[in-house]
Amino acid sequence: MISTVAESAPGADRAAWAERLRRVRGASELLAADLSAEDQTIQSMPDVSPTKWHLAHTTWFFETFLLAPHLAGWRIHHPAYGHLFNSYYEAVGPRHPRPQRGLLSRPGVAEIGAYRRAITGGMLDLIGSAADPLWREIAPLIELGLNHEEQHQELILMDIKHVFSVNPLKPVYRRRPAGAPLRPVVGEPEWIEFAGGMAEIGHAGNGFAFDNEGPRHREWLEPFRLASRPVTCGEYLAFIEDGGYRRPEFWLSDGWAAVQNQGWQAPLYWEREPESGWSVFTLAGLLPLVSGEPVCHVSFYEADAFARWAGRRLPTEAEWEVAGASAALAGNLADGGRFHPEAAVGGRGALQQMIGDVWEWTASSYSPYRGFRAVNGAIGEYNGKFMSGQMVLRGGAAVTPPGHVRITYRNFFPPPARWAFSGIRLAEDA
Amino acid sequence: MISTVAESAPGADRAAWAERLRRVRGASELLAADLSAEDQTIQSMPDVSPTKWHLAHTTWFFETFLLAPHLAGWRIHHPAYGHLFNSYYEAVGPRHPRPQRGLLSRPGVAEIGAYRRAITGGMLDLIGSAADPLWREIAPLIELGLNHEEQHQELILMDIKHVFSVNPLKPVYRRRPAGAPLRPVVGEPEWIEFAGGMAEIGHAGNGFAFDNEGPRHREWLEPFRLASRPVTCGEYLAFIEDGGYRRPEFWLSDGWAAVQNQGWQAPLYWEREPESGWSVFTLAGLLPLVSGEPVCHVSFYEADAFARWAGRRLPTEAEWEVAGASAALAGNLADGGRFHPEAAVGGRGALQQMIGDVWEWTASSYSPYRGFRAVNGAIGEYNGKFMSGQMVLRGGAAVTPPGHVRITYRNFFPPPARWAFSGIRLAEDA
Amino acid sequence: MISTVAESAPGADRAAWAERLRRVRGASELLAADLSAEDQTIQSMPDVSPTKWHLAHTTWFFETFLLAPHLAGWRIHHPAYGHLFNSYYEAVGPRHPRPQRGLLSRPGVAEIGAYRRAITGGMLDLIGSAADPLWREIAPLIELGLNHEEQHQELILMDIKHVFSVNPLKPVYRRRPAGAPLRPVVGEPEWIEFAGGMAEIGHAGNGFAFDNEGPRHREWLEPFRLASRPVTCGEYLAFIEDGGYRRPEFWLSDGWAAVQNQGWQAPLYWEREPESGWSVFTLAGLLPLVSGEPVCHVSFYEADAFARWAGRRLPTEAEWEVAGASAALAGNLADGGRFHPEAAVGGRGALQQMIGDVWEWTASSYSPYRGFRAVNGAIGEYNGKFMSGQMVLRGGAAVTPPGHVRITYRNFFPPPARWAFSGIRLAEDA
Amino acid sequence: MISTVAESAPGADRAAWAERLRRVRGASELLAADLSAEDQTIQSMPDVSPTKWHLAHTTWFFETFLLAPHLAGWRIHHPAYGHLFNSYYEAVGPRHPRPQRGLLSRPGVAEIGAYRRAITGGMLDLIGSAADPLWREIAPLIELGLNHEEQHQELILMDIKHVFSVNPLKPVYRRRPAGAPLRPVVGEPEWIEFAGGMAEIGHAGNGFAFDNEGPRHREWLEPFRLASRPVTCGEYLAFIEDGGYRRPEFWLSDGWAAVQNQGWQAPLYWEREPESGWSVFTLAGLLPLVSGEPVCHVSFYEADAFARWAGRRLPTEAEWEVAGASAALAGNLADGGRFHPEAAVGGRGALQQMIGDVWEWTASSYSPYRGFRAVNGAIGEYNGKFMSGQMVLRGGAAVTPPGHVRITYRNFFPPPARWAFSGIRLAEDA
Repeated sequence: MISTVAESAPGADRAAWAERLRRVRGASELLAADLSAEDQTIQSMPDVSPTKWHLAHTTWFFETFLLAPHLAGWRIHHPAYGHLFNSYYEAVGPRHPRPQRGLLSRPGVAEIGAYRRAITGGMLDLIGSAADPLWREIAPLIELGLNHEEQHQELILMDIKHVFSVNPLKPVYRRRPAGAPLRPVVGEPEWIEFAGGMAEIGHAGNGFAFDNEGPRHREWLEPFRLASRPVTCGEYLAFIEDGGYRRPEFWLSDGWAAVQNQGWQAPLYWEREPESGWSVFTLAGLLPLVSGEPVCHVSFYEADAFARWAGRRLPTEAEWEVAGASAALAGNLADGGRFHPEAAVGGRGALQQMIGDVWEWTASSYSPYRGFRAVNGAIGEYNGKFMSGQMVLRGGAAVTPPGHVRITYRNFFPPPARWAFSGIRLAEDA
Repeated sequence: MISTVAESAPGADRAAWAERLRRVRGASELLAADLSAEDQTIQSMPDVSPTKWHLAHTTWFFETFLLAPHLAGWRIHHPAYGHLFNSYYEAVGPRHPRPQRGLLSRPGVAEIGAYRRAITGGMLDLIGSAADPLWREIAPLIELGLNHEEQHQELILMDIKHVFSVNPLKPVYRRRPAGAPLRPVVGEPEWIEFAGGMAEIGHAGNGFAFDNEGPRHREWLEPFRLASRPVTCGEYLAFIEDGGYRRPEFWLSDGWAAVQNQGWQAPLYWEREPESGWSVFTLAGLLPLVSGEPVCHVSFYEADAFARWAGRRLPTEAEWEVAGASAALAGNLADGGRFHPEAAVGGRGALQQMIGDVWEWTASSYSPYRGFRAVNGAIGEYNGKFMSGQMVLRGGAAVTPPGHVRITYRNFFPPPARWAFSGIRLAEDA
Repeated sequence: MISTVAESAPGADRAAWAERLRRVRGASELLAADLSAEDQTIQSMPDVSPTKWHLAHTTWFFETFLLAPHLAGWRIHHPAYGHLFNSYYEAVGPRHPRPQRGLLSRPGVAEIGAYRRAITGGMLDLIGSAADPLWREIAPLIELGLNHEEQHQELILMDIKHVFSVNPLKPVYRRRPAGAPLRPVVGEPEWIEFAGGMAEIGHAGNGFAFDNEGPRHREWLEPFRLASRPVTCGEYLAFIEDGGYRRPEFWLSDGWAAVQNQGWQAPLYWEREPESGWSVFTLAGLLPLVSGEPVCHVSFYEADAFARWAGRRLPTEAEWEVAGASAALAGNLADGGRFHPEAAVGGRGALQQMIGDVWEWTASSYSPYRGFRAVNGAIGEYNGKFMSGQMVLRGGAAVTPPGHVRITYRNFFPPPARWAFSGIRLAEDA
Repeated sequence: MISTVAESAPGADRAAWAERLRRVRGASELLAADLSAEDQTIQSMPDVSPTKWHLAHTTWFFETFLLAPHLAGWRIHHPAYGHLFNSYYEAVGPRHPRPQRGLLSRPGVAEIGAYRRAITGGMLDLIGSAADPLWREIAPLIELGLNHEEQHQELILMDIKHVFSVNPLKPVYRRRPAGAPLRPVVGEPEWIEFAGGMAEIGHAGNGFAFDNEGPRHREWLEPFRLASRPVTCGEYLAFIEDGGYRRPEFWLSDGWAAVQNQGWQAPLYWEREPESGWSVFTLAGLLPLVSGEPVCHVSFYEADAFARWAGRRLPTEAEWEVAGASAALAGNLADGGRFHPEAAVGGRGALQQMIGDVWEWTASSYSPYRGFRAVNGAIGEYNGKFMSGQMVLRGGAAVTPPGHVRITYRNFFPPPARWAFSGIRLAEDA
């Protein structure tokens, strides 16, 4: 991905960019600060990467695309890291196989810390020393690198949650912050109506965006309504208790096969004990299910089946984007430190929780927008090549860094994926 | 699936319907006439079904949805056939597992022939004897059953081609008919331009259509161009010779994984011998590759990669439908008996081969049209539940029964599937 | 395999050998006579081969090792058959993959019948025309070919039983012959004692034997006892009802893993219906379990677990051979046409059913006898290369051709195999 | 397993037993001393366990079988450890699945260190405080626990070697000690002859032995010869260069399948670079191949194929034991700190390297000795239940603790296993 237009490139204030680099890099390290060396080494399934791999891979990005080509006299930190920490850039050479990231004890956490410090230092040198023409060329790449690192901050949280979940000790990543009392129950959702018509969606070119968010283009929309808030755990429990996981009539064919082959009976991380009832594993450990919280860690198949059971449907991404166009880019995001969706508290007659809490599955498959064309070279592999077999999610979640969320932001996962903080917002034809 | 509106129901002329039933049923049997009992028993991969299974399953459809509920005094032909020949209707009860259809020697070809005769006879009784209110109720189901059987006629040909292909003896299903000489070379395609704008696509409600072809609805299209003819084998060979299967930059990530995991080096059924060059396995046996023929048996991934290599893209299904709106419903279809795509012969300045020869992959994932809702009950499982993970193809192929093709027809297969007669037509933004 | 010594070669009476060839070849064809073309085409699991493959493979053996090298002017019947019908002889060239034998509709049953007739005819020519020195060279190979074909006669029955068992129609291969009434119950087994001491086992060199039966050699045996008859279904049922399949303490570690991974709860072909109780699928269809019959279709793991539950053990193959040394080579074999084990009827104080009814698992892994050395060339692949990972069974079963059983005969299967007619005879230290 | 007879129980000198416990426990910890927390967490394949798992499991053994039942007032150290660190004792309850041992970051290395200290302390209390009758009961269990821990010391070394081998950084576990110069070449082996006859093998009951080493019993042996030393890397290289891995005639059928399915072209840990030739990964890192060193990390299949290529065979375990009866229990064992086999240096006319360097595959499948019977209860699961599907190895290797090797010692691995320090000694009939 890349910023869509030159205007989004950072301005001349290099000190501000140096500060932003320090801040983003430091935020990643802070996420790992309470994890042991052992914690940071585990890969609990092929989709998951070890924490220390995330810390190294984001660093490799800066070294490979900024320091190696652009900082005079830069010597590659370690000859093997290119192989070990390349994620999927075919054009940059062979890679260590993804499912084997958890087989590497070396480099250890300490060595990766040193790697991070060296590359952050090199980046600060580069920012300070680049001649102006080079600066104009590389500034968009730096911005991309920082957004890339923010994406991995969310992945660090998603992944360590899965790592801890397979451990019978059910470790706590971070205790639930004290604060507002839980709201166990919320009222019925309202249905907010939108008129449709000729719409424009996609990034308009002001400020940073990933390449897949553009080009901005026209789509025709018929009138529709969105639920004012995401589906709650309590509503989802009603689906379960109505035989949701036993009745094929609600499910896409592939979804029903997933239910049977993988033995799904509830969202990922839900557990039922005979006497104590439902619990949910969170980054604060195993907690009792709270009915009013948005349901999380459901697959697209489950979201779609729930919608069919409820007599509704999922919104398209164009509907979502048009409806959310004026939403404030704030909410229950990672800076709150809760790392878990919270029950809606908002007022009446308006959409709530469009930003934060849970990523919302849409009915749209992840396809290129009209006119999309990947940039040349390795950077062009960022988004475009994943445009098959995945569905779009919108809005960010409680683990998304603030500032790393936009109304035009297109997140995407395969339909059976459940380890993202993915939830459901219902829609219907008006 | 079901005809979308009541008007599409057959008229009062029952004799004509009886004749049509006889004709469609007989056509299926004719396709199997030259196959041995052994041929009709083989399942060469999980996607393939034995010929005799197709013959029985289409029969089961009529017995289950027409005779059993509606013909007074009908006794189920055999108690086990419901289990053996149900394909995927969850609501009708458990099914024999699809990958095990090739493990059944009994019922044999002769018994299935008897089953077909009994059910065809019962259907003729029902057509003749149903009271008018019942007739109005069941006529759409009969039409659906006949269209369903036509779909399986195409599957019989697709499947026996695969069955024969895995046999080192390379059997011939039907010799190539004598006739017009092969056209080994064709000229460059022309690029036919379309203005876009507000379009309506989907079945309008006159005559039969499957449920997934509707509702008719509006979509906004930007200007675009379509190639006047499908991509040829010669053009595809240039892609291969330019390293198409060795260069990841052309491929979607999932497509590149398929290339490597499955060892793809050419379309399905292509074989290269050191001295004699490329051959293609066809229903007329192994034949030398003909450069001018449309390339066939490529996956969506290959179609997409070819388009990227060619600097073009695949059309969306809306573009295809708008462009093809006035195409004649004729071409190289199954009635020609060639069962293989032929080189373009058409004039200048117009789209050719929109109908017949090869199904054309589109860039559109198979999703419900705005307002789509499956009908209740088992019949409702016909199409809707497959609306995930598949891509739409348009236009019919050389194995599609004539009369079983429409401009609005939405065929669909998963992106890696190659055993359908699937080809490529390129598009570009205007 | 090969006859161990020259003395076992057939004598000069060529007419007798021609007659024996006709008889053995005809017996194979008789086994297939009631099977449809479809029946003969199915491969229900990788271990199973289609009937028509057996008929062709045994024919290929004669063509490859006798006619092609030794009959002047012989032209290979079909150039592809060498590839299609070679089973595992690496030295003879590449082979059609075993798990894909069921994907071949061609050659059909009729063509394979013609192949059989051509090769039988060629063999009769060769027997009649070979000069004496050639005759002395090839006569042992002919004898080997006939014994090989007899092995496949048993495999035809084992395999078609499995093919039919996976069909919900539960076809009958051959109705149970009228005759002696079933003996539902038999008495307790007696324990027949043997003194042990220095023993000689292995084929002594008179008459035909496979290479793995020799050389004859010395083994030291401690005193032991054998049960007078095989374990019955009733005894095995007691094991099941005592939690046999739920209690790990009876099982080898690999056996317990097989129980869990494969969901074993009873021998292969046993079925339990809530109201009607246990049934057993046989070549005469699904029949009620008969308590007094020898249990059949158990794996080595089950045999071993049963023995541990019973406080006994399995005999070694040396113990079995010494104990059976004087047994008559008669019993419930394939010529009885029952194709199913029968309850013991014998007198007191002696071993019963050592020959026929069920193959008896021994505690001995299938290893080369002291001094064993495979012959050179492809024929040397017959037995030796399978000498790892398998256990020895002794005594023949109700599907073994009479004349194809010897006290020294070493049958072998992997420990989890269950589709052979394999049962249990207990032993204990004296 | 358990010491075979009461006499092998430790004497009354409890102080000596406390010291031995301290020493064995300390030796385990020393092996892990140079490994990072990350190193100790990795499971590089299902057969491998993380170092910290070994350290915890051996500790769990003492807690479960000694402290919990026998030390008054003992409270279980952690309620989850029973589940996490039970290896395969079905009778003690469910276990954490073996292939998932590498998914556990917690308990970490520090917590397991604390666990070890607590249990070692408890054991010292128990040794000091047990009343005499209890002491007589538990002393054999303590001895078993110490021998069990020594087994895991060897596994720690085997496993960390594999863990490091999959890391492209090729870490060094311990540098090669300075010392005697390498002997790159050794002379031809001599063939040492043994007369055979009636032999007794198995543990005689003096001192500790595992249960599978008894009962001592008689076997008859024909005359045979053993090579004076194990096969060297240079000899094995000649096998490779003669097409050993490409010629099926040398291989057991299962072995040939393993060669093809797993792509074997050399022993495990051998690597070939175009210019620099063969290297071998060792616990001292990647080193050039030394021709005179015993070949190591070959499977049984490779050992058997090499022997067939060489015109020899593997010895039976009885032959090995009779031949080695008078060998000194010394050699290149783990106390040397080399952790790698060394070339033979010994004199003429005698067996060399029977003890240490490499475990030697025998031709004997791992079966119970005549009269073997597992003890009751969980401890009885120690050895007996693995007596299928494995082959016996004899003699110990360069990673075996001194004192943990006996002439009667029966090690065992499945035929395709290669990560043990397994080599080859040839035999032949005399």
